Amino acid sequence: MSNASNEMCTLWYDDSAQQLKIIDQTRLPHDLQIMVIDTLQQACDAIVCMHVRGAPLIGITAAFGVHLALKKDPDTLAQACDQLAKTRPTAVNLQWALSRLRDGLVSVPQHQRADAALEMAKTMLAEDAAACSAIGDFGLALLQEIQAAKQERGGSPVINVLTHCNAGWLATGGWGTALAPIYKAHQAGMPVHVWVDETRPRNQGASLTAWELAHSGVPHTLVVDNAGGHLMQHGMVDVCLVGSDRTTASGDVCNKIGTYLKALAAFDNQVPFYVALPTSTIDFELDDGVRQIPIEQRAGDEVSHVSGLDDAGVIRKVAISPPGTSISNFGFDVTPARLVSGLITEKGVFPATTKGLQDIKSRV
Amino acid sequence: MSNASNEMCTLWYDDSAQQLKIIDQTRLPHDLQIMVIDTLQQACDAIVCMHVRGAPLIGITAAFGVHLALKKDPDTLAQACDQLAKTRPTAVNLQWALSRLRDGLVSVPQHQRADAALEMAKTMLAEDAAACSAIGDFGLALLQEIQAAKQERGGSPVINVLTHCNAGWLATGGWGTALAPIYKAHQAGMPVHVWVDETRPRNQGASLTAWELAHSGVPHTLVVDNAGGHLMQHGMVDVCLVGSDRTTASGDVCNKIGTYLKALAAFDNQVPFYVALPTSTIDFELDDGVRQIPIEQRAGDEVSHVSGLDDAGVIRKVAISPPGTSISNFGFDVTPARLVSGLITEKGVFPATTKGLQDIKSRV
Repeated sequence: MSNASNEMCTLWYDDSAQQLKIIDQTRLPHDLQIMVIDTLQQACDAIVCMHVRGAPLIGITAAFGVHLALKKDPDTLAQACDQLAKTRPTAVNLQWALSRLRDGLVSVPQHQRADAALEMAKTMLAEDAAACSAIGDFGLALLQEIQAAKQERGGSPVINVLTHCNAGWLATGGWGTALAPIYKAHQAGMPVHVWVDETRPRNQGASLTAWELAHSGVPHTLVVDNAGGHLMQHGMVDVCLVGSDRTTASGDVCNKIGTYLKALAAFDNQVPFYVALPTSTIDFELDDGVRQIPIEQRAGDEVSHVSGLDDAGVIRKVAISPPGTSISNFGFDVTPARLVSGLITEKGVFPATTKGLQDIKSRV
Repeated sequence: MSNASNEMCTLWYDDSAQQLKIIDQTRLPHDLQIMVIDTLQQACDAIVCMHVRGAPLIGITAAFGVHLALKKDPDTLAQACDQLAKTRPTAVNLQWALSRLRDGLVSVPQHQRADAALEMAKTMLAEDAAACSAIGDFGLALLQEIQAAKQERGGSPVINVLTHCNAGWLATGGWGTALAPIYKAHQAGMPVHVWVDETRPRNQGASLTAWELAHSGVPHTLVVDNAGGHLMQHGMVDVCLVGSDRTTASGDVCNKIGTYLKALAAFDNQVPFYVALPTSTIDFELDDGVRQIPIEQRAGDEVSHVSGLDDAGVIRKVAISPPGTSISNFGFDVTPARLVSGLITEKGVFPATTKGLQDIKSRV
C-alpha cells in the first residue's frame, strides 16, 4: 500500500499478478481489506458501491476498468466507457478520464488497446499523485501565510483546519487534495490540528479522514457536521480546506453535501475557505454550478441505517429511523464561487472567478 | 399518554399511583417504554441521560423533581433545586422553573411544601401545553400567510417546512414549539410537508421528530443535517421552523448544534427562518448569545457510537470512528438575531430585536 516515493496508496496495479488492487473503503476504519478488481463489472461495482470513492480515484479506477474490459475483449472500448460513465453522475473526473482514454485509444490497433489502456491508466495514477503533491506544496505555502498572519495578531502557531468528507490519499492517487497541504505541513514540522467533520450520511470523515490522519500522526478532533458554525464563531478554525467533485468555469464548487453550509459559516466569520483540486476536476463547459451540475441521489438506507463495529467486533448495520420513513439523500451540494477564498490546484492558487478559471485553463 | 384534550403527552403525573411517568425518549423510535420517576435522583438522571429532553420539558421535569425531593424530606428545597440546576447548563427553562418553585415555596409551611410543589409542577405542565397551543395558532397564521404569498407567485399550496432536532410534543407539555404550527396546519387541512434534519449526534430528528410526525400522519422526509443548504438553494423549503433552548434580550437564539448553519442557508436563500418558543425560554439577563450563553459539552461517545435497531430487533450501539479518536461534542450553537425572521411565542409573533424582546417582556 505504498508507492515508490513511500506515500500511501489506496489503489495500485500489481504487475506481477497483473491485477488491480484497492483498499476496500467500505470496511474502514474497522478492517483494512484489499480487494482485487479483475473485470469491468467489478470496476463498476467498486465505484457504485463506493469501495473506491473520491473524485480523482473514481476517474483512475474507471481507466483501469477500461483496460480490464479490453483485456477480455479488445472490441469493447465504447461499451466499456458507456458502462463506466453511468456509475456515478457528479464527479467530472470520471468523464474526463474516459474521454482521455477514448481519444487516446481510438487510433491504436485493437490488439494493442488493452496494453495501451493499462499504460494510460498507470500514467493517470502517477499524474494524479504528482498533482496532489503539488497541491500540497502550494497549500503549505498558504498555511504558512495564514500562520504568520495569526502569529502577527498574537495568536498561537497552531493552525486549525476544518475539513469535510475525505479528500486524502484514500481519495486520490496519493497525498490527497484537501489533506495534502496538511500532510506537507505536518512533515515540515508546522503544528497543525484538523477538525474532522464526520460527514453524514456515509461518515467518510469519521471513518476515513480520522483513520488517515491517525495513521500519519496528525492531531485531529472529530466533530459532527453540525458543529462547524459554532467552532468558527468562537475562533477555533483558522482555515477550511475541502476537495471538489466538480468545479465550474465560474468557480462554483460541487463537493460532498454540507460543504455549502460550512462555506456560509466561514464567510460569516471571515474564515478563509479554500478548495483543493486537481485541474481534472474542472468542468470548463459549465458556469452555473447550482443550476447545471447533476446532483447524485443515493439510496435512503444510507441515511436510515448506520454501519459500525459492535461490542463483539462485528461490523453491523443498525436502523436509526422508524421503519418506512421517507428519505431523501442528495450526495453533493454546490458552493457558489462568491464564498470561496481560492482554488488550490497543481498549477498554483487561483481566485474562484471566471478570470481565475481562465488563467487555470491557459496552463492546463 | 394523552391528556384531557386528547393531545399527546410525553410526561404526566399519575394521580392514582401518585407517580410521575415519562416516555423514555432514549428508546424511541424503536421501543415505546414508559418510565416511572419516583425520586429526586431519578429525575436528575432522567434529565442528564436525556430520557426527557427539550427545553420546556426539562423545566417541567425539574419541577416534579422538587416535589419528589420534598415528599421524601420537606427540608430539602434548596438542595434539591441546586442538584437539579446542575443537570444541564444551556436551557434556561430549567433555571426559570426552579426559581419559580423556590420563590413560590419559600413562604409555604414545610409540611405543605411537597403538595404545593406538586400543584406548581402540574400548573407549569398545563401552562406549557397551553403556551405551545397558542404558539401553534400564531404559527399557523404565519404559515397561512406564507402559503398565500407562495400561491400568489404561482407556487403549489404545499408548504415545505424544514425543522432541526425535535421541538414537538415529546419536548414539551403538549403540541410542541416548532412542530405546534405544523400540527395545527395539518389539523386545519393545510397541505404541509416537513423536511426532518436527522440532528446528529443524538439523532433526535430521525428518532423523535420522524416518529412524532408519522404518528400524526404529517407528510415528512428525513434528510441528513448536511442537506438543508442544497434544499434551500433549490426552492424546496418555504420556511424553517426551529425551537430554542435559550433566547437573549437581543433576540439571539441558542438551539441544538447546527441550527446556526441552517439559519445562514435560509438567509442566503431568502427563506424565512422562524423560532418558536414559550417565553419561559427567554433569558432577559443576556444580550450577546454567542459570548454569554454557556454551551454544554457532552461525552464523545455520542459522536463515536450510534445506537439503533439491528436485524434481530435488538437496540445496539456501534462504533463509527477509529478507537481512541479525539472527539468534541458541543450540544448547542447560537444563531445571531440578524438571521432570525421572527420569534413565535404564546403572546404572538415578534421581531428578534431588542425592541421585539422588550415588547414580549411587557406582556409576560
